Amino acid sequence: MDSFQIDHKRIDRVGFPEIIYGASKTSEVIVEILQDYIRKGDNALVTKVQEEKGAYLMSHFPKAHFDALSSMFLLEYEEAKLQDCGIGIIAAGTSDLFIVNEVYYTLAYLGLKADRIVDIGVAGLYRLLEKLDLLKQYKVLVVIAGFEGALPTVIGGLLPQPIIAVPASVGYGVAAGGKAALDSMLASCANGITVVNIDNGCGAALAAYRIYSQLQR
Amino acid sequence: MDSFQIDHKRIDRVGFPEIIYGASKTSEVIVEILQDYIRKGDNALVTKVQEEKGAYLMSHFPKAHFDALSSMFLLEYEEAKLQDCGIGIIAAGTSDLFIVNEVYYTLAYLGLKADRIVDIGVAGLYRLLEKLDLLKQYKVLVVIAGFEGALPTVIGGLLPQPIIAVPASVGYGVAAGGKAALDSMLASCANGITVVNIDNGCGAALAAYRIYSQLQR
Amino acid sequence: MDSFQIDHKRIDRVGFPEIIYGASKTSEVIVEILQDYIRKGDNALVTKVQEEKGAYLMSHFPKAHFDALSSMFLLEYEEAKLQDCGIGIIAAGTSDLFIVNEVYYTLAYLGLKADRIVDIGVAGLYRLLEKLDLLKQYKVLVVIAGFEGALPTVIGGLLPQPIIAVPASVGYGVAAGGKAALDSMLASCANGITVVNIDNGCGAALAAYRIYSQLQR
Amino acid sequence: MDSFQIDHKRIDRVGFPEIIYGASKTSEVIVEILQDYIRKGDNALVTKVQEEKGAYLMSHFPKAHFDALSSMFLLEYEEAKLQDCGIGIIAAGTSDLFIVNEVYYTLAYLGLKADRIVDIGVAGLYRLLEKLDLLKQYKVLVVIAGFEGALPTVIGGLLPQPIIAVPASVGYGVAAGGKAALDSMLASCANGITVVNIDNGCGAALAAYRIYSQLQR
Amino acid sequence: MDSFQIDHKRIDRVGFPEIIYGASKTSEVIVEILQDYIRKGDNALVTKVQEEKGAYLMSHFPKAHFDALSSMFLLEYEEAKLQDCGIGIIAAGTSDLFIVNEVYYTLAYLGLKADRIVDIGVAGLYRLLEKLDLLKQYKVLVVIAGFEGALPTVIGGLLPQPIIAVPASVGYGVAAGGKAALDSMLASCANGITVVNIDNGCGAALAAYRIYSQLQR
Amino acid sequence: MDSFQIDHKRIDRVGFPEIIYGASKTSEVIVEILQDYIRKGDNALVTKVQEEKGAYLMSHFPKAHFDALSSMFLLEYEEAKLQDCGIGIIAAGTSDLFIVNEVYYTLAYLGLKADRIVDIGVAGLYRLLEKLDLLKQYKVLVVIAGFEGALPTVIGGLLPQPIIAVPASVGYGVAAGGKAALDSMLASCANGITVVNIDNGCGAALAAYRIYSQLQR
Amino acid sequence: MDSFQIDHKRIDRVGFPEIIYGASKTSEVIVEILQDYIRKGDNALVTKVQEEKGAYLMSHFPKAHFDALSSMFLLEYEEAKLQDCGIGIIAAGTSDLFIVNEVYYTLAYLGLKADRIVDIGVAGLYRLLEKLDLLKQYKVLVVIAGFEGALPTVIGGLLPQPIIAVPASVGYGVAAGGKAALDSMLASCANGITVVNIDNGCGAALAAYRIYSQLQR
Amino acid sequence: MDSFQIDHKRIDRVGFPEIIYGASKTSEVIVEILQDYIRKGDNALVTKVQEEKGAYLMSHFPKAHFDALSSMFLLEYEEAKLQDCGIGIIAAGTSDLFIVNEVYYTLAYLGLKADRIVDIGVAGLYRLLEKLDLLKQYKVLVVIAGFEGALPTVIGGLLPQPIIAVPASVGYGVAAGGKAALDSMLASCANGITVVNIDNGCGAALAAYRIYSQLQR
Repeated sequence: MDSFQIDHKRIDRVGFPEIIYGASKTSEVIVEILQDYIRKGDNALVTKVQEEKGAYLMSHFPKAHFDALSSMFLLEYEEAKLQDCGIGIIAAGTSDLFIVNEVYYTLAYLGLKADRIVDIGVAGLYRLLEKLDLLKQYKVLVVIAGFEGALPTVIGGLLPQPIIAVPASVGYGVAAGGKAALDSMLASCANGITVVNIDNGCGAALAAYRIYSQLQR
Repeated sequence: MDSFQIDHKRIDRVGFPEIIYGASKTSEVIVEILQDYIRKGDNALVTKVQEEKGAYLMSHFPKAHFDALSSMFLLEYEEAKLQDCGIGIIAAGTSDLFIVNEVYYTLAYLGLKADRIVDIGVAGLYRLLEKLDLLKQYKVLVVIAGFEGALPTVIGGLLPQPIIAVPASVGYGVAAGGKAALDSMLASCANGITVVNIDNGCGAALAAYRIYSQLQR
Repeated sequence: MDSFQIDHKRIDRVGFPEIIYGASKTSEVIVEILQDYIRKGDNALVTKVQEEKGAYLMSHFPKAHFDALSSMFLLEYEEAKLQDCGIGIIAAGTSDLFIVNEVYYTLAYLGLKADRIVDIGVAGLYRLLEKLDLLKQYKVLVVIAGFEGALPTVIGGLLPQPIIAVPASVGYGVAAGGKAALDSMLASCANGITVVNIDNGCGAALAAYRIYSQLQR
Repeated sequence: MDSFQIDHKRIDRVGFPEIIYGASKTSEVIVEILQDYIRKGDNALVTKVQEEKGAYLMSHFPKAHFDALSSMFLLEYEEAKLQDCGIGIIAAGTSDLFIVNEVYYTLAYLGLKADRIVDIGVAGLYRLLEKLDLLKQYKVLVVIAGFEGALPTVIGGLLPQPIIAVPASVGYGVAAGGKAALDSMLASCANGITVVNIDNGCGAALAAYRIYSQLQR
Repeated sequence: MDSFQIDHKRIDRVGFPEIIYGASKTSEVIVEILQDYIRKGDNALVTKVQEEKGAYLMSHFPKAHFDALSSMFLLEYEEAKLQDCGIGIIAAGTSDLFIVNEVYYTLAYLGLKADRIVDIGVAGLYRLLEKLDLLKQYKVLVVIAGFEGALPTVIGGLLPQPIIAVPASVGYGVAAGGKAALDSMLASCANGITVVNIDNGCGAALAAYRIYSQLQR
Repeated sequence: MDSFQIDHKRIDRVGFPEIIYGASKTSEVIVEILQDYIRKGDNALVTKVQEEKGAYLMSHFPKAHFDALSSMFLLEYEEAKLQDCGIGIIAAGTSDLFIVNEVYYTLAYLGLKADRIVDIGVAGLYRLLEKLDLLKQYKVLVVIAGFEGALPTVIGGLLPQPIIAVPASVGYGVAAGGKAALDSMLASCANGITVVNIDNGCGAALAAYRIYSQLQR
Repeated sequence: MDSFQIDHKRIDRVGFPEIIYGASKTSEVIVEILQDYIRKGDNALVTKVQEEKGAYLMSHFPKAHFDALSSMFLLEYEEAKLQDCGIGIIAAGTSDLFIVNEVYYTLAYLGLKADRIVDIGVAGLYRLLEKLDLLKQYKVLVVIAGFEGALPTVIGGLLPQPIIAVPASVGYGVAAGGKAALDSMLASCANGITVVNIDNGCGAALAAYRIYSQLQR
Repeated sequence: MDSFQIDHKRIDRVGFPEIIYGASKTSEVIVEILQDYIRKGDNALVTKVQEEKGAYLMSHFPKAHFDALSSMFLLEYEEAKLQDCGIGIIAAGTSDLFIVNEVYYTLAYLGLKADRIVDIGVAGLYRLLEKLDLLKQYKVLVVIAGFEGALPTVIGGLLPQPIIAVPASVGYGVAAGGKAALDSMLASCANGITVVNIDNGCGAALAAYRIYSQLQR
């Protein structure tokens, strides 16, 4: 059998390196892939790393960083070295923190430090209205919500920046798995918000990065 | 074959008479049923009456009232005789008017006059906030929205009354048929709003009437 | 990162305080939130608390109350202090008890004592008919059913009060997850029953409370 | 190309002849098939014949019978020649008549005369209870309902005969297309009712006929 | 709280007693219900009893019978006392045995002994054709299949008896949960087969029993 | 705006030319595209051409061929010039002819003459068994069925050739749109049949052509 | 009844004015709304205007512009006055033109001129690769595709700009309504593409405009 | 009860023996079936064998081969004895290896040695383009992908061989369970690729074998 092939040229084409999807790979395969990155002297990011896999990886790479809440694993992570970037990560509630951190660590892997603002869901609308001036200062907003997913719709009617909505798999009944939030975000037709897959914090971060890169030119 | 049997005792049991569902009945059958009501001296309401059927019914009962927008047909309708009831019908936009009127005419059939407040969707949130004091005065709110259906969620976080949410089949793509609005309203878990079937303005009116009746006791 | 923000003003706006959704929060986050409530001298309710989390919370707050059947956690619960409220909680069978209790404890958190009437499903219709006189005395009915969810439809044709239907995730095959019961309750168009999300006993209790509050004015 | 091949031996195997599904065949093909039946001296039944096709067929076979309500076409139909069979066709409302008649004419094609009892839906439960003694006399019950489809469930808890439930595509929103009724009938687990496809009156009649044949042995 | 209420009069109405659905009840509740049956001197059947619950019940009622394969629990079961009934239980493969036995034990609870014929799926059609003469002798056929669920369709074209099809939750991908088999069985329009919910062996047995009872009259 | 770009090199890469999807293009655009083909001296095939569009195209290209049954339009079609190819097109019934012909004309466009064998659905199994020797002679089988779609499964257990199954949008209720047939064909796991999209006769023909080309090498 | 309320302050909040959704409004209501815009001296855009409505509007506002292909209506449109903006609209094929133009005219309404590049679907991959240098020059890419919707995924692996993917309701079977394209675009997890609702060309244009506005600052 | 019946004549009819589906059978039943094969001197293949079952089987048949990655169990497996067959197994990434190996071992069971080529997903398109000459040499391609499943579409536009696409249950959100990949592969209409059920590596191998057998004649 062929062995794996990292797409090491992706950064030249799209501006950011390949990211490793951890959920469906065995721990052994991930370790092998990470050693390839280490040989090249590159940092690496693995997403959706289940808790036991995370422990296994930490035992192999003790200097690495594993955030159990968001299931994110980075070979190297130094908060102090990150650069401000004007990207705000907004979430309806503390139940969404696992996605908030997936966005945060993906941007950290790309060298950027984003801000995290939590608990401004639409059920307590005034908490959101009080923070509008703060939110106006960001260049890009990543907005996360589960259940009925109304937060990006409301923000989309109040603020002019690019808005990337992330449905979170938080809820039960018709909200189970994040499907109601996803459809609600997509259905919100009037305001130019865009959407990524349920729980795809990593993809939202990359989409924000694509905009950030244009702004840097 | 048996002929049809009107449930004439329903009013004694549940407080309001049987209402005729028009969409799947032939015009001939509806006429026959209506003549039964006329014989008993009762008013009658037919819902979801397609346009051609409405014309056919009007040609048989020229003194009746047909609202083409909401597909509602009443044997008798006199706005002047209706009583104020403290029920507010709120809709996100003018696209939802066909359901607004279905609620309105169902309550009219029961002798009540409800208020209609349109175009306060969440995309233009300040229009809603400016009307909060007005909305606070109603005893029951029927809230209608299509697309992402966020309006009842937002109102549910701002106002204390009973709220009956009606998803409207307004939208396209994932919003087609009203399914995204329905799921969004059901998923909105924190605030005690209740939901009826998509486009079921009649049912929402009856639910409001059940509360109204309790308040009258 | 921002820390969490309880919406402590919700009670002023909608008449009842914020309730904590426990299923997607870590035990540590819930403890932190509860300590905030204790500091303010407030009681708190956490819903959908998985069994291990419940044990963890009880070890931190030994005077609290945890109902494992319904996964409900209250900082304080004294049955003797609850007030009668005229709200009846009706369920098709003993399989639905976990939702019956979710409704019960939510109302208890708001200071109200509701009645629980179980095992009157439509398969044994006479059990229901025998209890009609009892049921007629309630001001609001919360009706819970899984499988085909026919109970609220049948009650809706027999009784005049406001009816809040709760589909329960009880059943298998097409009934798995409560979807058949939900659709059946929504589809029941003629009688003015309203519906909440699958397993949303808490939301049904809050909807009943909104009606109860209007009746108290 | 091969031409069509009628399964003329089906009656020897399963006890009833092949029935022609009309909805997806062109009028020309149906005429050709019917002429094959006429050549063999056999009666023939075509189901789901759209209105224009029905007119076309009647112009070719003027002695035939076309029931526009149920879209059923029979080469020969003489009510007087039909035999009583103890099969009752029960429907929730007059909106379901198109399926009532599909069952009726399929049995007529097999030489049997069934009874039709309409308008005993669960919203007006007493209409059903008053007819229980009548219903007890049938050997087989075909029970048709749209919307939430609760009727077979209620009858299943009251009567001991074989019950074949037919979901009707009557309703809107989540009830559109008959899906909510179908799932509700399937989910009704405790009482031994069986179900056929949405709007499949013909199949329900054949299932009743299979039982009838066993009883005749 | 009200305690449970067994529908002890069901046997008078529909000819068979209430059956206990075990999957969503706690072990304690089931024990309590069973003791009520024992007090009345009745046998009892509990369906969908998860393995640990089965062990718990057996420890309380050591003379009872628990079939782990089909998750069926009977207070009393003596094979020797069962009566032949002419009901054949047919399954496509050994993967469907858990449903085969659910049908078998439900009939056993009603005093009947059915035959079980396994491994005649349509992929090996000749195995089925070789058994046609055997199958012709049954009065009622219960036919179980997972995956694409084609077996009842094929049998429906070959044999004249009443056929009750049971989709089994056997398969993966689009067949996961039994949905493909269910839809395939319902869609099979031409032959008068009827269908019950996925994995509802108990309901299929009761449906067969309803026919059997008619034949006994 | 850019104008359209035919992929004229596709034949060099994959062995057959680009085929024009007609359903969503305006008649004017199709005419323009066809004139491009005529300029190059190439034949062209347009699929899913609605009846009015077909008439419009025929008025512009009077020597072309339009098959209204299958909605297929070819600039040039001469049956006499087609070559035998050993591909058999099998369909359950005459309702499936519109797809039978879509397969037939796609292969005709590629210069091949396939055989069409209709009306051997599984409800009349002996019609199929009688033709087994005939069917054994084909090198590739394209098998079309609507409703429950069992035909490819049965053939897959009887014959050794490559089998390409095509679900047809023939049926109603759960079979509407061909979804039940599709899932049934995909779920049929044991025999190595492959599947294309619902109604995709053209794709099935191209898949057969890919195999035919390998056999020619 | 309240009359409609245009959200005339939206442009101050989010940077672009309210856009009128035409599909569910009556022609009369739209005319009334447009007259309100004319009174204020503002241009207006109406989306999803069915053909007959478009003709009606043109008869009332003869100087307006109606693009029948995309169902877009603008009170004023002068191509010469538009400004270049570096936004590229890319589509897989000519079947997608109705969405291409919806994006184009929405940007035109905002004063911007976008480029349209059609027919570079993945089935003819080299057509795309040949245009890579051209595509690299755009600041934002709006990428439209129906059927399997693979185009944004492929472009996302080749180019670094912000990419807004629009699923088009082009296709049949599982692709009908654009659902397969939508899911495919959302599922494409590795590259930071974002998605809007099916056929939501207008929303994609607004999302592109939000990015464009940030770049102008 | 009947005991099981292996379809030992399948190889005579379709060219390959029956394969045992392991997921829904108990370990005891599988052992019994395998002993039947051993008695006949035949090799046997069991698919979808969960890890614990695999260990149980290995303890009974220590000379057998169990591939935990793909859950495949073979009584006998000797790589050296396999024959080259010109079948290429292609996968988008290392997450798909469990299906790659299911295809590989099914072909091994039939005596064939296929090649495995991994990590050429469309996100890194150049990896695929660089391997085109290699891929051109295979007679049949089995192409596996999860997430958005675009790989078979892209390959279908580049290469002329028969292509069997296998959607893998790799992904989350809308991609969970492989449904997005399945629909995307089916929707890919223009190029004659065929599809099997999600995760059905075994079926894809048998489909490839059917083509291989034709080529051998």
